[in-house]
Order: sequence, then C-alpha cells, then structure tokens
Amino acid sequence: MTAKKHVYTFEKGDSRNKKLLGGKGAGLCEMTSIGLPVPPGFVITTEACLDYYEQDRKLPADLMEEVAKGMRYTEQKSGKGFGDVKNPLLVSVRSGAAISMPGMMDSILNLGLNDETVAALAKNTKNERFAYDSYRRFISMFCRIALGVPGEKFDRILEESREKAGVSYDSDLSVDVLKKIVSEYKEYCREATGSPFPAEPMKQLELAIEAVFRSWESPRCIAYRKEFNITKDVANGTAVNVVTMVFGNMGDDSATGVAFTRDPGTGENKFFGEYLTNAQGEDVVAGIRTPKTIDQMKKEMPAAYEELDRVRHLLENHYHEVQDFEFTIERGTLYMLQTRNGKMNAMAAVRTSVEMMAEGLIGKEKALLRVKPAELDQLMHRRLDPKAKITAVAEGIGASPGVAVGIVVFDADEAERLGRTGRRIILVREETKPEDVHGFFGAQGILTSRGGKTSHAAVVARGMGKPCVCGCENIKIDTEKRLMTIGEVTVKEGETITIEGGLGRVYLGEVPTLDPEFGSDLQNLLSWADEAKRLDVMANADTPEMASRSRRLGAQGIGLCRTERMFNLPERLPIVQAMILSETREERQHYLDELMPLQKKDFLEILRTMEGLPVTIRLLDPPLHEFLPSLEALLREVGSLTEIKDLLVARQKTIDEFDHILKHQLAYYASSFDVKEQKLDGVELDMIEELLQEKGKLLTKVRNLTEVNPMLGHRGVRVGLAYPEIYEMQIRAIYEATAELFKEGVKARPEIMVPQVCTAVELDFVRGLKDKICAEVEKKFGMQVKIKLGTMVEVVRACMRADRIAEIAEFFSFGTNDLTQATFSFSREDAENKFLPLYNKRGILQDNPFETIDVNGVGRLMKTAIEWGRRVRPELKVGICGEQGGDPRSIEFCHAADLNYVSCSPFRIPIARLAAAHAQIKDVKMPF
Amino acid sequence: MTAKKHVYTFEKGDSRNKKLLGGKGAGLCEMTSIGLPVPPGFVITTEACLDYYEQDRKLPADLMEEVAKGMRYTEQKSGKGFGDVKNPLLVSVRSGAAISMPGMMDSILNLGLNDETVAALAKNTKNERFAYDSYRRFISMFCRIALGVPGEKFDRILEESREKAGVSYDSDLSVDVLKKIVSEYKEYCREATGSPFPAEPMKQLELAIEAVFRSWESPRCIAYRKEFNITKDVANGTAVNVVTMVFGNMGDDSATGVAFTRDPGTGENKFFGEYLTNAQGEDVVAGIRTPKTIDQMKKEMPAAYEELDRVRHLLENHYHEVQDFEFTIERGTLYMLQTRNGKMNAMAAVRTSVEMMAEGLIGKEKALLRVKPAELDQLMHRRLDPKAKITAVAEGIGASPGVAVGIVVFDADEAERLGRTGRRIILVREETKPEDVHGFFGAQGILTSRGGKTSHAAVVARGMGKPCVCGCENIKIDTEKRLMTIGEVTVKEGETITIEGGLGRVYLGEVPTLDPEFGSDLQNLLSWADEAKRLDVMANADTPEMASRSRRLGAQGIGLCRTERMFNLPERLPIVQAMILSETREERQHYLDELMPLQKKDFLEILRTMEGLPVTIRLLDPPLHEFLPSLEALLREVGSLTEIKDLLVARQKTIDEFDHILKHQLAYYASSFDVKEQKLDGVELDMIEELLQEKGKLLTKVRNLTEVNPMLGHRGVRVGLAYPEIYEMQIRAIYEATAELFKEGVKARPEIMVPQVCTAVELDFVRGLKDKICAEVEKKFGMQVKIKLGTMVEVVRACMRADRIAEIAEFFSFGTNDLTQATFSFSREDAENKFLPLYNKRGILQDNPFETIDVNGVGRLMKTAIEWGRRVRPELKVGICGEQGGDPRSIEFCHAADLNYVSCSPFRIPIARLAAAHAQIKDVKMPF
Repeated sequence: MTAKKHVYTFEKGDSRNKKLLGGKGAGLCEMTSIGLPVPPGFVITTEACLDYYEQDRKLPADLMEEVAKGMRYTEQKSGKGFGDVKNPLLVSVRSGAAISMPGMMDSILNLGLNDETVAALAKNTKNERFAYDSYRRFISMFCRIALGVPGEKFDRILEESREKAGVSYDSDLSVDVLKKIVSEYKEYCREATGSPFPAEPMKQLELAIEAVFRSWESPRCIAYRKEFNITKDVANGTAVNVVTMVFGNMGDDSATGVAFTRDPGTGENKFFGEYLTNAQGEDVVAGIRTPKTIDQMKKEMPAAYEELDRVRHLLENHYHEVQDFEFTIERGTLYMLQTRNGKMNAMAAVRTSVEMMAEGLIGKEKALLRVKPAELDQLMHRRLDPKAKITAVAEGIGASPGVAVGIVVFDADEAERLGRTGRRIILVREETKPEDVHGFFGAQGILTSRGGKTSHAAVVARGMGKPCVCGCENIKIDTEKRLMTIGEVTVKEGETITIEGGLGRVYLGEVPTLDPEFGSDLQNLLSWADEAKRLDVMANADTPEMASRSRRLGAQGIGLCRTERMFNLPERLPIVQAMILSETREERQHYLDELMPLQKKDFLEILRTMEGLPVTIRLLDPPLHEFLPSLEALLREVGSLTEIKDLLVARQKTIDEFDHILKHQLAYYASSFDVKEQKLDGVELDMIEELLQEKGKLLTKVRNLTEVNPMLGHRGVRVGLAYPEIYEMQIRAIYEATAELFKEGVKARPEIMVPQVCTAVELDFVRGLKDKICAEVEKKFGMQVKIKLGTMVEVVRACMRADRIAEIAEFFSFGTNDLTQATFSFSREDAENKFLPLYNKRGILQDNPFETIDVNGVGRLMKTAIEWGRRVRPELKVGICGEQGGDPRSIEFCHAADLNYVSCSPFRIPIARLAAAHAQIKDVKMPF
Repeated sequence: MTAKKHVYTFEKGDSRNKKLLGGKGAGLCEMTSIGLPVPPGFVITTEACLDYYEQDRKLPADLMEEVAKGMRYTEQKSGKGFGDVKNPLLVSVRSGAAISMPGMMDSILNLGLNDETVAALAKNTKNERFAYDSYRRFISMFCRIALGVPGEKFDRILEESREKAGVSYDSDLSVDVLKKIVSEYKEYCREATGSPFPAEPMKQLELAIEAVFRSWESPRCIAYRKEFNITKDVANGTAVNVVTMVFGNMGDDSATGVAFTRDPGTGENKFFGEYLTNAQGEDVVAGIRTPKTIDQMKKEMPAAYEELDRVRHLLENHYHEVQDFEFTIERGTLYMLQTRNGKMNAMAAVRTSVEMMAEGLIGKEKALLRVKPAELDQLMHRRLDPKAKITAVAEGIGASPGVAVGIVVFDADEAERLGRTGRRIILVREETKPEDVHGFFGAQGILTSRGGKTSHAAVVARGMGKPCVCGCENIKIDTEKRLMTIGEVTVKEGETITIEGGLGRVYLGEVPTLDPEFGSDLQNLLSWADEAKRLDVMANADTPEMASRSRRLGAQGIGLCRTERMFNLPERLPIVQAMILSETREERQHYLDELMPLQKKDFLEILRTMEGLPVTIRLLDPPLHEFLPSLEALLREVGSLTEIKDLLVARQKTIDEFDHILKHQLAYYASSFDVKEQKLDGVELDMIEELLQEKGKLLTKVRNLTEVNPMLGHRGVRVGLAYPEIYEMQIRAIYEATAELFKEGVKARPEIMVPQVCTAVELDFVRGLKDKICAEVEKKFGMQVKIKLGTMVEVVRACMRADRIAEIAEFFSFGTNDLTQATFSFSREDAENKFLPLYNKRGILQDNPFETIDVNGVGRLMKTAIEWGRRVRPELKVGICGEQGGDPRSIEFCHAADLNYVSCSPFRIPIARLAAAHAQIKDVKMPF
C-alpha cells in the first residue's frame, strides 16, 4: 500500500477539492490562498477517515506522524508552541464533510490545555477566570466526545458548585471554585475511564481526531444522511480541521463578529455586520450583550475596520458573490474564521444581482443564476410586516401566497354581493366547488377547513392570484349559526381576520402588512431573462383583468383561456343550466343563442387586451354536471321537502301535535338551503309541491349526468361531440369577435384549442365545424379570418397517437394535471388526501407529481409524443398549460424536452421567465 | 383512349379477378372453367360500369358491339337465337359487384320476350299459361327497372283482372286473361313513357344493362355501402351478367333446387339438399310446395342425381370447402346457376374441418383457419331448442351466453340460501355490486335491468360462465313488493323464467334446451391448434372449481387468480369487514390471523388442481371500501333508522296519532333492508339506538374510504403499502401452501403478482416482504421454496418505467381493462353508458376498446413497454389478463406483439387456443 498524503496545511490544500478536504477545510484553504488572515492550521482528509473505517476503526499508520509535522508547521506560523508553558498553542479540532451537516458531527475547542498551559493562558490573557472556565469546558467536552464519558455527572458537579457558592449563573463562579471544578472533573474522568485525564497535547489531539472520525458513523449522522438523501458520491467521510485558536476576548483591542459584504435584507451595497469587543464568538450568538454595528468600528477600531473593509472587497472580488463571514480580532490582529455565500431574501438577491452586474463583478448569466426563480414569489404578494407582534390563531396549508384582510363570510353568494359593495371579504368554507367560484371574485382571500394545496379552492385562488389557506383542520364551521370556532375562539360572520397564504396562517383582526416589492431591479433582471431564455412564457388567464395583468407581468400571450368560467358567472349560470336541462336540440340552441353575445363580448375584450399576442382559447371542458348542483345536496333538499310535505299533509289531521315537528323541519330546511326565514310563515302545501316538482326534474338530470369516475367521464370534446351546437356557438363567437376586431384594425390572434382529445377523428370533427363556421363568418364580414386549431394533450392515448393527431393539430398543449392523473392512475383529489403523503414519507415519490412534472414517467410520455408529433409536422408548436408550467424544475424539463412555451398563472410569470432563462444558461438536457 | 375489353364470356373470364368481374361473374367463370354445366353467357365488367359513370351516365362507345358479339357466342353455345321466333334465346341480366350486397341492385329475368318469342316459348314449353305469365312479369319488371315506370298501376291492373275473373290467386288466371293483361301492361307502358314497349331484344338488353349500372348509385345502394363500410378499394361499380335462361318447369324431367355438399346443420359428409320437379327457382324459396330431399332424386331422377353427385365432388375437390349451390334441370340436363361457400354453425364447421382433413381434402392449417374462433362460443353453452315455439317477453343485452332456467329471486342473500338447497335460481337485480357476488354462486343465471356488456353483473357472470342478460330496460323491479313487471306481465318472486344470454332474451316459464356440443371433433381440432400456436393460453380462475374446469378446457396454467373473491365469500366477509374497521395494526392483525388459514386452504386446493402448471396469484387489488356496504345504502339505512327513532320518541306523547306513520316507516325499513317482519312487533327504542350506533360507525369508515374517482384511487399495491400486514398474510399463505404441497410431492408452481404498480419502488417494497417471508417459511419447512414475483401492468406509468420495473419483476401481465381506461381517460362504467355508443355510431371508434384491444393506442403503449422491459430482462415473460385476452382479434395482436401468453375466462379458452393458432398460421404482424 502506497502511503497517501493525509494532511494538508491551509497553504497547500487544493481548495477546489471539497470532496477530499470537506467544505470547511476547502474554505479555509481558499481564504488562505487569497491572502486572507486565517489562523494557521491544517486539514486531515476525508480519505483518512475512510481509511480509518476500512482498517476497522484504526487511524492510518503514519497519520499521527503527518499530524505532528502539521503541528510543527502551525507552531512556526503562529509563533506559539503546542504544550509550551509560556506561549502555548491551543487549537480547535473541527469536523467538516463535503457538504454541510450542521450540528451533526463533533468539534473540540481549546485543545492543548492542561494544568501547565492553562496557567500560561491565564497569564497571557490576564484573565484567570476565562482561562479556567475554558479549561473546565475543554475537559468536559473532551471527556464526552473523545473518551465517551457520560456527560450528566459534569452537569451535576457544576450545579452543586453553584449551589454551594450560592450563585445562579456560571459566570458568577469565582476562579477558585472553577479550579475546584476542574479537579473534580479530572477525578470523575479517572473514575469513569480508569486512567487520568490525558494531559499530553499530542495524545489529546490523536484522541480528538479519532472522535471526529467516529462521529461520521454515529446513528444520528447516519439518520441525517438518509433523511436528506446524502449518498456516498456526494459526501463520503469527514475531514478534520486543526486550527489555531484565536481569542477576541483579550482586551479592548480584541473583538469578534459576523458580517455581510452587502446588506442581506435590502441588497444595498453597504458593509453590514455586527461585533462585540472583548468577547468570544459564542457571545455574539448568545445575545446577552447587544452587539455594535460595523459602522461603529470605523471610529472605535479604525485600523481593524480598514483591514476588515479591505477583506470585504477581497472576498467579493474573489467569490463574485455576497459573502457572510465570521471574524475575530485578537489584540488588533484580524483573523478570518469562515466565509460562505450570504443568504438573502428575494428582494436583496435581485438588487445585488443587478448592482453586481453594473459594477462589473458578475455577468448577466451569473446575475440571473444567483436568483432562485421560486423565491420571486415573495415579491409578488403583500407581506406581513415582520416587525409586527402577532400570533396566528390557526395554521393550515399555505396554498396561494399573499396576505388578505377582510370580514368572514360563509357563503359564495353573500361574498359576491358584499364584495360588490366594496367590502373586503374572506370567504370561509369547509371546501369549495365550481359553483362557489363567483364568490371568489368578490373575496380578497379564501380559507377552507378541508383540502390540500391542489384542492379546488387552492387551484382557483392561485389562478386568480388571491391568497388562500386551506386544510385548516382545527377550524369548525357552523353554517347554521353563521360562525366558526378555532379551539376556544369563536369568530362570527362579519368579524375581521387576516390570512397569510404563504405559510398558511390565520390571524384575528387586521394585521399590519407591507406592499409587494416589484421594482426596477426586478424589471431589469427579467428583461435579461427574456434575452437569455429560449422558451416563451404565456399565461393561463380567463378574464380581461387577468389578461392585462399577465401582459404587465411579461406574458408573451395566453396559453390557456378557459371558457367554462365565463359559463359560471352568476348572471349566466341560469342560462347555462337551462341549456343543459333542455330536452331538444332546438331548446338548447335557444339558450346558446342567448349565451353567444356574452361569450363574444368576453373574447372581444380579451383579444383586444392581448393585441398582437396569441390567445389560446380552450373550448368547453368540464362535464356538464359541474354546472348543476351536486347530487347529494339535491337529494338532501328533496328529502327535506318531502318530509315537510308529508308533515303538512298529516298536519291537516292533528295540527297541534305536529306543529312543533314541522317547525323544526322547516327551520332545518331553511338553514340548510338558505330559504329566508320570513318566507316560512306563509308556507303552503302547493308551494312546497311546486318546489318539489322543479327540484325533482333537476334531480333526474343530475342523476343521469352523475358519473362513477368523473375524472374519466363525459367531458371535453366528448361533450362537444354529443352537443356540437355548444362548440359551434363558441367557435362562432371567437370568429366573429376576431372579424370585428380586424375591422377595427386590431391585430387579434386567437387560437382554438380542443380539450380531452384521444383520437384524431374527434379533432377532425371539430375541424369540420370550424371550417364551416369560418366560411360563414368570412362571407359575412367579407374578409379572411385565419385561426389555428390545436389540441390539449391530456389523455394518454393522444400521446400514443401524436403522429396521427399532428396531421390535424397545429399545436399541442400538454394538460399535465390530467395527464399526470391518467399516467399514475391517481385521482388527485383522492391521492392527495389518502396515499400521496404516505408515498412521500416512504420515499416512493420524491415530489408531488401534481406540482413538479414526473420526468421519468409523465415526462417520458411527453417526450415520446413530441417526437412522434414533430415527425409528421416538424413545425408543431408545443406547450404546457398544467399547473406545473409555473414550477421552475418543470420548466427546466420543458426546456430540455424542446417545448416552445410554458403557460402558467399570471403571478408565476416572472418566476417562469427567470426559470426559463436558467434552463437555457445551464443548458439543461433530458435525462433519457 | 384505348378501348378496354368490357365483355368476357364465362369461358374467357379470369375467375380470380373478382374486382373486375364481380363475385357472381367470377363464380360463373370459375364453374365453367372446371367443367361444370353453366348456362352459356358472359360478363360485362365493373370497369364498364365505372366508364358509364365517368362518361356522365353513358354506356361506353363500343360496349353494345362487344355485347352483340357475346350474344352471338351465347346463341351458338345454347343453340338458340336471341329474338328467334322458333327457338328463342331468353336471358337473365343480373347485377354482381365484387362483394355481395343482397337485394340492393336490380336484375331482370326472361329478357328477349316479345309478342313473337312468347308464342314460341309457349309452344316449346307446351305451357301457354307459363309463357304468358312470364311475359306479363317480364314487362312489368322491365318497365319498372329499365324504363322507370311507376309500378303501382301494374299491380292495380292485375288486381282488377283477378276481380273481373273472380279468382283469388294469380295462378288461377286463365291464358286469355293473361294475354289481356299483357296488352293492358303494354298500353300503360306507352302512356307512361310516350313510346311503345320495346320489342327488339337487343334494345331490351341495352336498356337493361344501363338499368343495372344505374342501380349501383341508387340511394339505397349508397346507404348500404356506407352502413357496411364498403369502400371503393373493396368494391367499385357493378358487373352485369347476361346468362341464358334455363327452366326447371318444362315437365317432369325438369327440376330446380339448392344443395350443400355436406350437411350444414351437423357437418356430416352426406349430400344435403332440396328440390322441386317441374318448378322454377322462386317456387323453392316461396315454400308453397313442399320440396323433396335430395335422396328422393336418386330414385326419381337417377341420371340427374348421378350428375349432381359428380358435381358435388367436383366442387369440393375444386374449392376444398363445403359448397352451397343452386341448380336447375331442364329436360334432363343439369345447369349450375351459382355456388358459394356453405354457411355452417360451429358444430358443423368443426366436424367438416376434422373430416375434410382426414379425407385429405385440406391440411391442418386450412382445417383450423376455416373455423372462426368466436363461433366456438356456441359450443360452450346450453342452447335453446330451435324447434321450440317460444316468444321472448323481454329483450336486453346478451352479456354472457348460455341458457339458464330458474325461479326469480330479487336479492343475493336469498339467491345464495335457496341455491344451497338445490333450487335453480335466476338472480334479478337492477344492477349488481361486489357484495352481491355470493348470490351469483347460488344462481343459474343473472338478469339485470341496468348496465351493459361490461357491467359488474356481465363481467362476473362471464367469468363464472353463467348466462347473463343485462340492461333489460323494460323490466321494472319492485323489491318492496317482491315482483317485477314487464309491460303488462307481472312476475312474482318464486316464479320460473328462462334467460338466453347469447341474444339477451327472457322467456316466461321453462323453455326446452339442448346440451352443449363439445365432442371429439373439437378436441381434435384444438389439439392441432395447440401444435400450431406459439402463445400459451392460460385461465383467469379464482376457485378450485374454475381451476379444474380450465384445465379440462386446455388451459396451460392460471394467468390470473384473484384473491379478493376469496375475501368476499359469505362466511369470510364479516371477518374482512372487521379487519377493515380495525383501529390499530394489532387489531387488524388479529383478523388477518383468522383469514390466513382460509386463504391457505384456497391456495392449497388451487395449486393442487393445477399441479405442474403455473398459477399466477394476484395480491389483493380492490379498494377496501368495496368490501363494505355502499355509502348510499348506509345513508338510507341510517336515515330510516333515525326517522324511526324520532317517531318512537314522539310516539310516547301521542301514541295513537303516530302509530300509522310508524307502522309505515317500519314496513318500509323492513322491506328495504330485509329485517324479518316478525321482529318488528317487539321493536324497542334501545334496539334501534344500538343498530344506529353500529351503522354510524360503519358510515364513518365508509365515508373516510369513499373516493371521488375510485378507478384511480387507493387500491392495489397502494393498499399493500398502507397496510403491509394484508400482503404479508397473503404472501405467507402462498408460501406455506406451496411448502406443504412440496412435502407431499405435489409440484405446485405459484407466482406472485402485484397489482396497480406505478413505480419500481412499490414493487421493491413487496419484494422485501416476500424475501423476508420466504426465509421464514424455508426455515420452518427446511426446504427451498422458489416463487417468481411479477407485476400487473395496468398503470400507464408502469409502461413508461418498464425498464426500471423489469429489473425487479420476473414477469409482466397487462391488465388491459384498467390500462384501457387510463389510456383513453374513459371510465368504463361511465363511457359504456354515456358516450361510447355515440362514438361507435359516429365511427370515431370502430370497436369497444374494452372488448378488443385498441391496437393503435393501448397496443402501441404495450409494445413500447415490452420493448423497454425486455431490453433490461430479455427473458421477461409477458402476458395479458384483461378481458381482451379471450378476444380473437386481441389475441392476434398479442401474438404479433410477442407476448408469451394470454389469459382469459375458462369458457373462452377453446376460442383463445384456436385464435392463437390462427395468429401463428396467418403470421400476423404488428401494424407499426
């Protein structure tokens, strides 16, 4: 076996080799190499650690010889002697794997202390108390970590000493007491180990190195690696750093502190930091003394400040990144103990990127890459004022970020009505359904007690950019009494609450908030992103308001304009329901004729808003029963009505006896179905019978339309085929709106998208309708109107028939919500409540495939479909309009899979623009 | 334009060119070429017809010249003259496209008749009546078809003549009257057309040819081609056959008849046919005179018989197929008018195949190919006696073939109970659910008023091989009154009915039936199929009875042994429900321990029955809520109980007033939920409350388990992951059963199959359980127990991850029912009731993909999965166990896609064996 080199001094270590030197070791070497004042020391490599395990937990043969050489070098550099009784060298022995595992492995400070060197330390620091306190701490730390002595007894000795001395804090113990504690500690060490406490510094060092190696395989360390999926190719073994101890508590010319090269809160290019004079590092963290700002150092320790400021620039020039570093000043000499990239909030990240680029410190690509797309979310919504002293009364799932304040309202109609009067509303429901959507328009935010991140409430709220907290399970809603209880607290309808949809918190009353930050820095950065990216970024937007918001946020068009929400508007829903309940095609046509001008108006407005940009309009998609009340609600209603009717009949016989039962039933009915109380006085049998008849008809239709698996049911183009007149109405509305805009000189660019297609024949049928209507409209307006026809790809079979379908479709838009459901045979509603949590916990799925595209399964299917489709139509435009379209990792996949665009909800557009730029800059490739 | 040849004599036409000569023309040429006595004549090609249309409905320039040549040739061959007043040649002019379109196009008989030739005909036939009757018929036929004269007037003239003559039948009209009719017909013809009736035979011929060409584009013809999807590449234009008329009615030495070369009812190699002496072809069909059997001809017309028998052998030797032919004997001379392959029932097809092979007439491959696999179904079930005079009272969908007789029973419990006593039962339900399955065991057949061919009732009944009629919508079931009404008819529980599950018919009372035919011929044929085929044929079988039946029917193992039916047995279901309702793992384990010996017993029996053959056992698949009562039923039950409770409470106050309401409610409850009447007398509040509590608990669990899209829910391996103890119990039962059989020397060959897998990690988890249990059982029994592990492939993602999954799975079994649902995003239950019929009607889907594999979509996905899987594991065994596994066209695909086996319900095994042989012989290839 050739002897490997196991020890590198900070001068000699190759800072690029993190795997060999560990993260901390590489950092110390790097700082040393660029001339920063790092305390002298050396690194023992991770290979030494692996050898230790390979040789059955024995240190490699020559390791301690190499270490001794390293110590000699360190002595020389520091001018101190290891074990020297005049000027003793003390060191810290610190773990450090290739990636950070905070708090998992062991470190020992002040190694080298013994009865002789402690005296020298006391003398040199002129602080006997500090010296013996350090010694006491060292002994207990060393005994526990290096010798495996149980730690409780040390605590007990300390406690008893405090009691005897009659003091409450360790810091009040006298030097004599500390000395006594030291000797008791050593005595206990001998008892526990059978040997005296090792006084010889090199022996201490050897034992400490072994202890650090040992801690790599400690149970908690193993568990941590498993939990965070740290595999051997990422980090294998720990390095050991032996570093000269420096002391910031050697008088008023000493100090210790932490600093950022720029302000991490705002990103401003201004030195930012805190320090304490005559203090140790842990004092800064402990927060007992109030630290001073770095500005104060300018006056107080001008030389040190100057040196520190020089280091600050040196660091940024070297790392091209904001640094967060720790330093100690020992008797006027600055020592750098650590530096790392500074963590910043999104605003600061954006500002520093733009400014560092302007300063020439970084290029545009680096400027883009150092801002995480997902973090931009923080800038898109109002935020709680972090300075406010507030406590949440309930916590749910943060489903749509932002803060909303308003009065609690428990039903959608009321929310809509009050919302129109200008009141700020929070709509609170157990869960929401499509028929509640009009209530969303009136509300500032939505709070539900059931459902997850992808429940109806969450999806709709995110689409609208409204804050939403859902699945807030400790809220109990009593719609009858019009109140909710949260533990002991009761909130009545009309009372004000605040919800925060990022973390999913609920507050009583109105809580102070801050405006969103969306300044010129972000605009700048995003314009660079637009230059860099290959993917187009489009918006999912259904209304003129959403369209113009999307445009402001940089959308390059609308990738998904759903038409069903236009059907759901309160003034239209009754017409839609009448259309559905029609018995004949003629009757249906009558109601469609009423709807047509309304739809045309929608399209006119949206197309005008998006002038010059494509607007992909999806024909009606949901199953028709979604526009009708639920079967369960109707059954209950009919049941109640029937009971009331029976009771009314019987009442004729024994009026008095039945009256109280009737009253009860009527009250129940009223509360459940929102019949106004006052109406009940005059209730008559024939009125009830009339209601029953009407509801009965509705019930029959709903029963007919009810499906066992609605996800896989009669929807999308299947409805369009069954009732072609619905699609005809929509297509005509699109064509006429376009022609009218053309007349005005407005460049409208609609495209028609067909949902749920699974065979080319379906699409061909719609093309037939479209061609017919196109000819009619062109004739009517005397002009050419060209509109593209494309298809959603959300059915697996459409992927398998992509080549055939591409003969007709001019574009594909992957509906990855449905496609994911079908690919996994997961019903999202069922899976997210039932077994997806188990699947994530067990590591069967790393991510929620409804949030991030499942590249290996769904992605592979998409890739196949794209290949087959483009084989037939090389210019085929391909996009994605599922929720994953706004997810940065999914966008990377879309880039790699050679899509043309992603489409997402308006508020995710900045994120998508940045993510698309990242994908291009990183040149992300397909994994298969 | 070079003149094409448009006319071929029967001697010259190339009988292989059906497209040019039409089916009939080719047949006449072929018979002529092999020396059969065909009346002289010629064919005008389909190309002439196309030219006719191309030239704007004008006959091709030289056509009539060619026709005249053909006529001269015909005159020469027949020794008669066209228009000759002594020995006139009469011809028939018949249509004949490349494929048969019976009754769609026009033909004209006796062409060539006029006032002169009719006299000669009278003289030569010595039958003036026949001659003038023929003339009369010819005129009206010609006028209608060739001249477009409306036909009603001809009928009126005939009617008036009958009235005047005072006779009821045309056959009683005298020659004079017939002559008068002829002149009236001709007069009417002149009135209607403005010209005299064309007497010139060549003119008649020209007009007749044009008329036949014209009929190709008649509306009914166009509609027919559309209906049966006859495209231009299949048949384009009609040929015209001009054939010398021969007459079977020229005295007692003349005759006409039809015959088969073998008996088409039994397949026996025996001349089979019927004839009439001195008669025309239409007389045989009309059925006015009773025809004689061909045997009688032996004595009556021995020379003719001998000639006919010679023809019979000539035909079989030439066609190598049973022939069905028409003949006429004119004055002792035999003429062949037509021959075609004989249509036979399955039994005859099988017998003739086996016998023709034995006779050396055909080889084994031909013997196999000439029997259609699907037809074997006829041989697998009891049949109605075709001679019985019976009328169906209702008609539904034939969902599972065969005849069942029994008394009507409306619930599953009762069906099971009575079935055990030996009574024959027909279980009648609106529809069935998994909890009704125990009732199927007791029943002879199943009748439902709702659902289609793939409803629960249909699928389960087919699996059990029990006759089933479903979707019988005009049956109204009143479970309360224990009766059903079918129109005016009322059938009470306990009355006998008969159902026929092939055509979907329901009869009152017991109807005579015949045994299934499954003789040595079929056994022989299937043994040849086994030699020929490449695919293995396995059975879907869940019980020892089904296993042994499968083995008898030739299964090479069990491809799908479902374990959930074992959970559903009446004595086990309560344990299963208790297991599901358990709150803790311990409690669950307790019930699983009770189930374990029962499951082991099942496996012991099945494995023993299938000794030496593989048995693929699928671990539990359905969602747990399928073992509990339905939410709706429970809600109703709880609702009723609550009402009763409320009424009982109120009853304390006003006993008399409430009593009648209570009685009504109690009666309703009793009838709905089968509480025995007698118990009701002593009903007490606390009893009701106890029931309510119990049902309430159940309701909570059912609510928790209820899913929005159960198809995509918590099932299969997802349940196995959530409750590993269930799969552990099953795996242990399999291992222990195997070990016990090994001890006895029985070669058990179980394989374990995991359902609903969508990632390799799931399968790996089950492998972990299996390895652990294997080690334990091997230790306990002191022997090696090797059992293969494989997976269902029924989730799309499993196809996309086939390579990764094949690292673990030793076999794939495509669950094409679920895979089809997921690929189409069709919920079968919803689609088959709602939009699939529309899709079939509109031609969007040719087939029901749940019956026949959708090759282009699902098939392509399967092919991809197989390729990817075998790339990792070349020896990967691949099969199919969906219902399509028993469908002949799907089996062809499975062969082409290189599967190793198909698995289907026991009664389809013979079909599958034959279909697999067909696929191999035809060397079916993948379409992509």
